[in-house]
Amino acid sequence: MNVAVIGANGGIGRELLPRLDDAGHDPIGIVRDESQFDEIRDRGGEPRLGDLEGEFADALEACDAVVFTAGSGGDTDWGKTLLIDLWGARRSIDACVEQGIDRFVMISSFNASEPLGEPEAMRPYWVAKRCADDFLEASPLEATILRPTALTDDEGTGHVSSAFEYPGESGASIPRADVAQAVVASLENEDTVGETIRLFGGETPIDTAVQPEN
Amino acid sequence: MNVAVIGANGGIGRELLPRLDDAGHDPIGIVRDESQFDEIRDRGGEPRLGDLEGEFADALEACDAVVFTAGSGGDTDWGKTLLIDLWGARRSIDACVEQGIDRFVMISSFNASEPLGEPEAMRPYWVAKRCADDFLEASPLEATILRPTALTDDEGTGHVSSAFEYPGESGASIPRADVAQAVVASLENEDTVGETIRLFGGETPIDTAVQPEN
Repeated sequence: MNVAVIGANGGIGRELLPRLDDAGHDPIGIVRDESQFDEIRDRGGEPRLGDLEGEFADALEACDAVVFTAGSGGDTDWGKTLLIDLWGARRSIDACVEQGIDRFVMISSFNASEPLGEPEAMRPYWVAKRCADDFLEASPLEATILRPTALTDDEGTGHVSSAFEYPGESGASIPRADVAQAVVASLENEDTVGETIRLFGGETPIDTAVQPEN
Repeated sequence: MNVAVIGANGGIGRELLPRLDDAGHDPIGIVRDESQFDEIRDRGGEPRLGDLEGEFADALEACDAVVFTAGSGGDTDWGKTLLIDLWGARRSIDACVEQGIDRFVMISSFNASEPLGEPEAMRPYWVAKRCADDFLEASPLEATILRPTALTDDEGTGHVSSAFEYPGESGASIPRADVAQAVVASLENEDTVGETIRLFGGETPIDTAVQPEN
């Protein structure tokens, strides 16, 4: 599969490119600046230019799937969260619909299911993520929404837990590398289409953890 | 009609209460603080407590229609825009659906139709408004979405223009009082259900301006 990664230079994106490559896919890393091209290539991806606030739809040409893991990050104001995490996600979804790219994996956030949760300081972020998720869910795309808990830069373990096992519970933090591997596992498992999967650190092999019951 | 006004103490809300009262309706002004109750009463409204970030669904009891004109305003950060203009709107819509309140009028913004328009500094606001509008549109409610241009505190003229007349064009600023009157006109005209109406200053009597073409 040609898999476009929007946010290829972010924490999860960087982990995702080589894992897609290792799994036999062709990852396409979409970045805003040509200075990032070498880094994308080093990680096994084909770099393309795309700007979620400007021109980017062309960057999706001939892709079979899109992974959205872009985020404005903690160093910008909530205005950027509105523009990137929410509107950028919507533009990506719309572009997929227009271009007939059916498969979409969204990296969301655990508390997107409950945006007025704690800590209060995070609420605007969860609102943005939830609204992007809902827009995807209402779209005609074949979507998988992953909602990991707190992310760490720890080495991947190849194991996670999902809320299929522990519904309603919060859980341990999760390495970005394991979230990236869960993206690959989701793309390769059609049963994950239409599912919203809460992920946290755990002991279940990732392929098994993302498998919905029944 | 018992009409709940969410954001009753805002610029449009203050103009709306007496106009609803004059038109024979029973306006209910929902505010966050009891200190605002007298002002609501002075404007012909029944004050009730409700907090869009906390408890507020009870404030809608026995209402026939809801007008959403709450906004975090220009003095707070975009985080509040996410929490009030977007999530607060969604919570209001959800509460109406749950309570069987069918009629909803949303005060949106002209450029919600094109959130990446100019000036750039306003884009996060338009994203929030657009996403709230789309959520309403996708809901089962009988919705009218009003999208006024730049708002002024000028006296109402009783006249506006709508994009039914000038599709695609931007236009003159509009007094909040005239937007408030357009809310009353929309509530009293079933043909406005399902319509998104861009409003700007103009010369057409308000009742006529909000009337969709057949």
